[in-house]
Amino acid sequence: MQITFTAVPGIPLIAPGDDLAAIIADALFASDIRLLPSDVLIVAQKIVSKAEGRGVRLSQVTPSPRAVELAQVVQKDSRLVEVILSESVEVMRTRPGLIIVRDIRGWVCANAGVDRSNVAQDEGDEVVLRLPLDPDASAARLRQGLCERAGVDMGVIVADSHGRPHRNGVIGVAIGVSGLPALEDWRGRPDLYGYALQHTEVALADQIASAATLLLGQAAEATPVVVARGVPRTRCEGSARELVRPPEMDLFR
Amino acid sequence: MQITFTAVPGIPLIAPGDDLAAIIADALFASDIRLLPSDVLIVAQKIVSKAEGRGVRLSQVTPSPRAVELAQVVQKDSRLVEVILSESVEVMRTRPGLIIVRDIRGWVCANAGVDRSNVAQDEGDEVVLRLPLDPDASAARLRQGLCERAGVDMGVIVADSHGRPHRNGVIGVAIGVSGLPALEDWRGRPDLYGYALQHTEVALADQIASAATLLLGQAAEATPVVVARGVPRTRCEGSARELVRPPEMDLFR
Repeated sequence: MQITFTAVPGIPLIAPGDDLAAIIADALFASDIRLLPSDVLIVAQKIVSKAEGRGVRLSQVTPSPRAVELAQVVQKDSRLVEVILSESVEVMRTRPGLIIVRDIRGWVCANAGVDRSNVAQDEGDEVVLRLPLDPDASAARLRQGLCERAGVDMGVIVADSHGRPHRNGVIGVAIGVSGLPALEDWRGRPDLYGYALQHTEVALADQIASAATLLLGQAAEATPVVVARGVPRTRCEGSARELVRPPEMDLFR
Repeated sequence: MQITFTAVPGIPLIAPGDDLAAIIADALFASDIRLLPSDVLIVAQKIVSKAEGRGVRLSQVTPSPRAVELAQVVQKDSRLVEVILSESVEVMRTRPGLIIVRDIRGWVCANAGVDRSNVAQDEGDEVVLRLPLDPDASAARLRQGLCERAGVDMGVIVADSHGRPHRNGVIGVAIGVSGLPALEDWRGRPDLYGYALQHTEVALADQIASAATLLLGQAAEATPVVVARGVPRTRCEGSARELVRPPEMDLFR
């Protein structure tokens, strides 16, 4: 059994309005990668957000009083904090340099995923990048676009890098999923000695995203697309929302 | 750029006292896998624990009053709870069916990693399996043993599956590391637009463990060893302790 992760070469810098499915399909055609329906395509959140025009010019943001207050606590630009708050439903933890929120998509993450790295200055006006508004829908559109152009109905994951409690370092996670289960329910499967597994749900899409992030790197636009081949999985529509633990079930709120 | 994860076939069931390095080296020789020094070997915690004799017969455990009390809260066998407490420094959260602790190795995880699945009944006496006492040392011994037998100084990761706050599903994590950095510090690297990355430390070993766990599965003894090829990494001694967030730095204690 073998799983292979291959970075797709030749993806250009992405601009708002770009047709990401067409660009990725072209890059795949130009490469040696011949797609299979069992493949999973992992796409860095950053190029999805850029194509979808999710950048915000800080010069056009007016911070609310709440953003100004929080900006002093966390020592960030109050306009950036305003963008973060507009993407959040709950501020969970703060300390200088860090705001951890539950974002409008349900993810508990730093800065609601709003990023100022790798975003080109726009005529001297700093642009920050928000996550895709609905990353599942982004994944589904990419999947459909690639199916139309490449004739192969692959799974698609939109991947981001998140920090996490208890452990140092960021890891790749899935924030958008289409065409594969985000979560696999192994409960009731017999283990080697015939016990039924009691608790095990496996975050399949997160593990694939972590693996692909080994190639995506952090300067993700250099190699923002990876093809995974050989991942054992069932077919289904899937949704990254399967991975969202409801707040009332979260022991570390 | 490509990364390949290959399950090593032919690993037999492991018993206490087995020479794991010899068994893995034999399986590698018998397979088509020709090792490279840049390879990383991922080994499921379960077979490391078994080889190291980390099983405990519940019939030989006398629960403390504290274990009896906690067992009622979480509705578990008080002898199992005693084993969990003996592997823990702090009980962090409880609810029926679940004890989340900071374990003696520093990991925040369910049940201190003590597992009753996939552990053979020993003459009708239930045996539960504790984590390796020092998984970094386990990884280092395996690395040295494999280097002596196979002539290749690979990186070694001991992998387990952990749940986590905020997100559903377990993922593979590294609990023992030797021969590669567990954590890569990308701070100060320029991004594509010349900004210096401010915050990014990447949990390299966790991402590799998650990828390998796609093959390890949960019934891990079926394919408990995976070879990763092509992971971009530097060489160093490494330690999974790099991944332990000190409690005073953990915003979700």
